[in-house]
Amino acid sequence: MVTTDTAPLFDRVAIVGIGLIGSSLARALAEYGIARQVVCADRNPEACAKALELGIVAEATTDLAAALAGADLVVLATPVGSFATVGEAIGPLLKRGTIVTDVGSVKQATLRDIGPHLPDGVHLIPGHPVAGTEHSGPEAGFATLFQGRWCILTPATGADRQALARVTEMWRRVGSTVEIMEASHHDRVLAITSHLPHLIAYTIVGTASDLEEDTKSEVIKFSAGGFRDFTRIAASDPVMWRDIFLNNREAVLEILQRFTEDLTALQRSIRWGEGEQLQDHFTKTRAVRRGIIDAKQA
Amino acid sequence: MVTTDTAPLFDRVAIVGIGLIGSSLARALAEYGIARQVVCADRNPEACAKALELGIVAEATTDLAAALAGADLVVLATPVGSFATVGEAIGPLLKRGTIVTDVGSVKQATLRDIGPHLPDGVHLIPGHPVAGTEHSGPEAGFATLFQGRWCILTPATGADRQALARVTEMWRRVGSTVEIMEASHHDRVLAITSHLPHLIAYTIVGTASDLEEDTKSEVIKFSAGGFRDFTRIAASDPVMWRDIFLNNREAVLEILQRFTEDLTALQRSIRWGEGEQLQDHFTKTRAVRRGIIDAKQA
Ligand SMILES: NC(=O)c1ccc[n+]([C@@H]2O[C@H](COP(=O)([O-])OP(=O)(O)OC[C@H]3O[C@@H](n4cnc5c(N)ncnc54)[C@H](OP(=O)(O)O)[C@@H]3O)[C@@H](O)[C@H]2O)c1
Ligand SMILES: NC(=O)c1ccc[n+]([C@@H]2O[C@H](COP(=O)([O-])OP(=O)(O)OC[C@H]3O[C@@H](n4cnc5c(N)ncnc54)[C@H](OP(=O)(O)O)[C@@H]3O)[C@@H](O)[C@H]2O)c1
Repeated sequence: MVTTDTAPLFDRVAIVGIGLIGSSLARALAEYGIARQVVCADRNPEACAKALELGIVAEATTDLAAALAGADLVVLATPVGSFATVGEAIGPLLKRGTIVTDVGSVKQATLRDIGPHLPDGVHLIPGHPVAGTEHSGPEAGFATLFQGRWCILTPATGADRQALARVTEMWRRVGSTVEIMEASHHDRVLAITSHLPHLIAYTIVGTASDLEEDTKSEVIKFSAGGFRDFTRIAASDPVMWRDIFLNNREAVLEILQRFTEDLTALQRSIRWGEGEQLQDHFTKTRAVRRGIIDAKQA
Repeated sequence: MVTTDTAPLFDRVAIVGIGLIGSSLARALAEYGIARQVVCADRNPEACAKALELGIVAEATTDLAAALAGADLVVLATPVGSFATVGEAIGPLLKRGTIVTDVGSVKQATLRDIGPHLPDGVHLIPGHPVAGTEHSGPEAGFATLFQGRWCILTPATGADRQALARVTEMWRRVGSTVEIMEASHHDRVLAITSHLPHLIAYTIVGTASDLEEDTKSEVIKFSAGGFRDFTRIAASDPVMWRDIFLNNREAVLEILQRFTEDLTALQRSIRWGEGEQLQDHFTKTRAVRRGIIDAKQA
């Protein structure tokens, strides 16, 4: 999947926010020869020091201007809630022809919060690698994170075709399959496949923890298969997820409404002992899993 | 964890229902020398043939009487909803001194549905190995399934102490840690750590699948981390889960009520943009995950 026998796509890539995703991309860009030089800016001096110590980047600084100087690609990899501030900060530092992309989990927010700050001739290509773990920070990253995963790009109408082609090629070279769609469609799809599952996992783990306190007895100790998976999901970064829910509010609330209706129907079947309805529903969802396995995303 | 250097605990163990759990236990009992002979009964002739072909059991038959003849331990490993029928069928076949146990995921149901059918002098020790996968049938089983997992036993007051000790020792020898509790407490704890997560996973996968049909667009294709885990859980056996929900109705409905309240509170925080509340909640659940990792159940 990964090709190293081609010329670098970029001379200098500046990654803003050297966390799990930023550091994974930095590693991949360097290791696979996709960029001649990878540098990073992070507000956290410890993250910068760590990134240098791990040898992930050529330069690491808390000074945005220093990192962005001479970069032909800038990748924003901070939480979505910081995009307005980061956009405002980088705007004046960008030269014509620079490409700006991001890895944020919500895509309308990128267009809304970054877009207005970019000078003319700077090309914005919003992106979202659908890959991740529940860990954070530069130590958690790894070059192969994006292999065999989707990366969704959501350029605005009229976005620069060449910039789009280069960002597409970058993700292809780190091993992802690129899909292009409208930002609003992305946010709706991810609301059900990612945001709602996280919200539910956060909820159920909280409910269990309250029950444990309430009954003063072991509850979580006997966590069986299902619950263990939920606790892993509910261990994801609190700030990142706060920002996702606040910035994809409408789509999440809409999907939550559908989910609640469906849950209420199953609840009713349990209350009234409607075994056939339950079995039918469970049989249908089992088939969905098969579809995902066939699509090789499991 | 597994000891093979001790004398067998049982002469002949008859397993009723040679699916994932039954065949895993059969394998472990034979491989670790816990029983001199392991046989099975299953209503499905194909499952019997498969169990013989795989060499899991010494005898496999659809004839309950043939399998139970001479058994000093009978293990019921069929879905919980079959317990009343199975109990009625085995009752007349059991000799004094035989121990009957089960692996059902709901424990009050065992006492209620099996108990009344057992003749005097037959000892019922209900059990639930908190271990499993989303697969079914004799091919899916493996001897190490129970290693490092809990097995919960829920004997009625006044249950035979020696029978309890032998069943406990059996689970210890297959690698589990045994915990003894009241059946009603078991059902309440598992309602939150296992039954509700499954119900939620079944719901959300159904919601996504409906949305896909509704919008005629790919939704499930982009299943990110969270959702993929849910689809795996929602691929669990429909009959087994139908039976669990129907037989643990009260505890599931009660916990569902708490869950819905908590979800509504988070929903409200999203609607009103209460970032701090969201972040606090997510930080708390992250700590729960740490607890589970420390308890080595992750
Ligand atoms: N994790 C995933 O599974 C995943 C998957 C796909 C996309 N994403 C997206 O990728 C982005 C980064 O996520 P991540 O998991 O890599 O996070 P991470 O490991 O927590 O790293 C985030 C980095 O951004 C910095 N940062 C945080 N707030 C900032 C602010 N207000 N201004 C400037 N810098 C700030 C952090 O510094 P501090 O240490 O000072 O906070 C940290 O170095 C997010 O937009 C997320 O939605 C994540
Ligand atoms: N899977 C788990 O993760 C897990 C974990 C802990 C406990 N358990 C419990 O273990 C038990 C067995 O589950 P499993 O996963 O091993 O299921 P499984 O793989 O589906 O096997 C169940 C076996 O029982 C037979 N059976 C089904 N209905 C029956 C009936 N009405 N009368 C007689 N036999 C019947 C099945 O035969 P057919 O092929 O004819 O249906 C099959 O051979 C259940 O009580 C479940 O609650 C499961």
